[in-house]
Amino acid sequence: VMDGAPPPASPVGLSAYVAVSQLLGLTLLATTGAWLGHYRGGVAWHSPLQFNAHPLCMVLGMVFLQGDALLVYRVFRHEAKRSTKALHALLHGLALVIALVGIIAVFESHRTKGIPNMYSLHSWCGMAAFVLYLLQWLLGCGFFLFPGASFSLRGRYKPQHIFFGITLFILSITACLLGITEMLLFKISDSYSHFVPEGILANTLGVLLVAFGLVVGYVLTREEWKRPPLAEELALSMDFKTLTEGESPGAGSQ
Amino acid sequence: VMDGAPPPASPVGLSAYVAVSQLLGLTLLATTGAWLGHYRGGVAWHSPLQFNAHPLCMVLGMVFLQGDALLVYRVFRHEAKRSTKALHALLHGLALVIALVGIIAVFESHRTKGIPNMYSLHSWCGMAAFVLYLLQWLLGCGFFLFPGASFSLRGRYKPQHIFFGITLFILSITACLLGITEMLLFKISDSYSHFVPEGILANTLGVLLVAFGLVVGYVLTREEWKRPPLAEELALSMDFKTLTEGESPGAGSQ
Repeated sequence: VMDGAPPPASPVGLSAYVAVSQLLGLTLLATTGAWLGHYRGGVAWHSPLQFNAHPLCMVLGMVFLQGDALLVYRVFRHEAKRSTKALHALLHGLALVIALVGIIAVFESHRTKGIPNMYSLHSWCGMAAFVLYLLQWLLGCGFFLFPGASFSLRGRYKPQHIFFGITLFILSITACLLGITEMLLFKISDSYSHFVPEGILANTLGVLLVAFGLVVGYVLTREEWKRPPLAEELALSMDFKTLTEGESPGAGSQ
Repeated sequence: VMDGAPPPASPVGLSAYVAVSQLLGLTLLATTGAWLGHYRGGVAWHSPLQFNAHPLCMVLGMVFLQGDALLVYRVFRHEAKRSTKALHALLHGLALVIALVGIIAVFESHRTKGIPNMYSLHSWCGMAAFVLYLLQWLLGCGFFLFPGASFSLRGRYKPQHIFFGITLFILSITACLLGITEMLLFKISDSYSHFVPEGILANTLGVLLVAFGLVVGYVLTREEWKRPPLAEELALSMDFKTLTEGESPGAGSQ
């Protein structure tokens, strides 16, 4: 970029997989909307339909936006690291706010209907995913976004941040699948086993959630698709190494 | 080994994590046994208790044995690759046989009781996990265990085999969690929301399944815990490189 060369292109395979992930993500949202709109009376806040805001917010926040936040280092691979990092934090922050709205929806709906909270495996997995996701976001901001943490501390935390980030994404998808199963057995327990269209549609939503996780996970774990460090980042980290090793700065990196 | 040196030790952290994974695995089996034995009347084949063989076989085969099969390259890191590979294939084969018994149990139980098959999200995810796991095992044997596939073909397939192996392990655990939720809503739908001991125990089994997956996944993805190639393997692969690149074999590697 500095010497006027054209910006390097993204690998072709990567672009195709990212496009598929976004198509799957939009299909996820459309399928959730179709289920709630066509079979469950739609979504509204101060109404008996308040519960329906829960699945919609969780799929949008904890799956689609969380997944897209994980992809930003692959998609914006030639942008400055600081902007990509800010977008990563922003998308996760937005996902957390939307998920919080979804959690409030189910707690308020339970209070109105006199249903107990937090007894099911779905609620245990889902709440664990949300609380640990919030913690991961706070730790990520503390280590990587705000100044203060040393280069070596950031380097030691980074593999943990990546592992637990992917783990929480998987746990979020699992919690959604548990929620779909619970909702079907609460609402259509008598007809589910007769392959009624609502059951097929909700199962298909589950399969789409797995497919979205699969494609995002594949993009994230391909070694050759990792974000390459920019020339100036390499220079900076070499300066840093030289400084910490107590030698004089090398030629050509300033 | 050849020059009489003591065998290199495994990293301390790795051994600790593997020990925790095995404790979790045994706790998984004990918890499944306690649930089925204490609350569900036990396990028997030609009886109304035949269904109970399903969760027991799936947890043993698709989770514990599958997980342990994934760990063999980390645990037996200084053994010959050929023996480790055979153990990897053997454990997965055993897991498949036990899972097949578990699948027969639920189909026969459904037939006896007149319950339809394959309508639920649990059955879709579980059957997909089993069929793809069998396919992955066949492909793995074809590429890596029997001679025939070239070095370069093996090298290209290996990252796919690893990615889909971990993915199928996660999908298997997800299918177990869906099965737990289904079983609780079928058997104790009235009392589940009152935090009865059976519900807490089965939820805890779900949390243990997630914990087992987390620890196994952590061990598998640590870069520094990957199996280092043995000296003789390095020599072999250098010979191979030299041969395919059309140069004369290098000195010292024969």
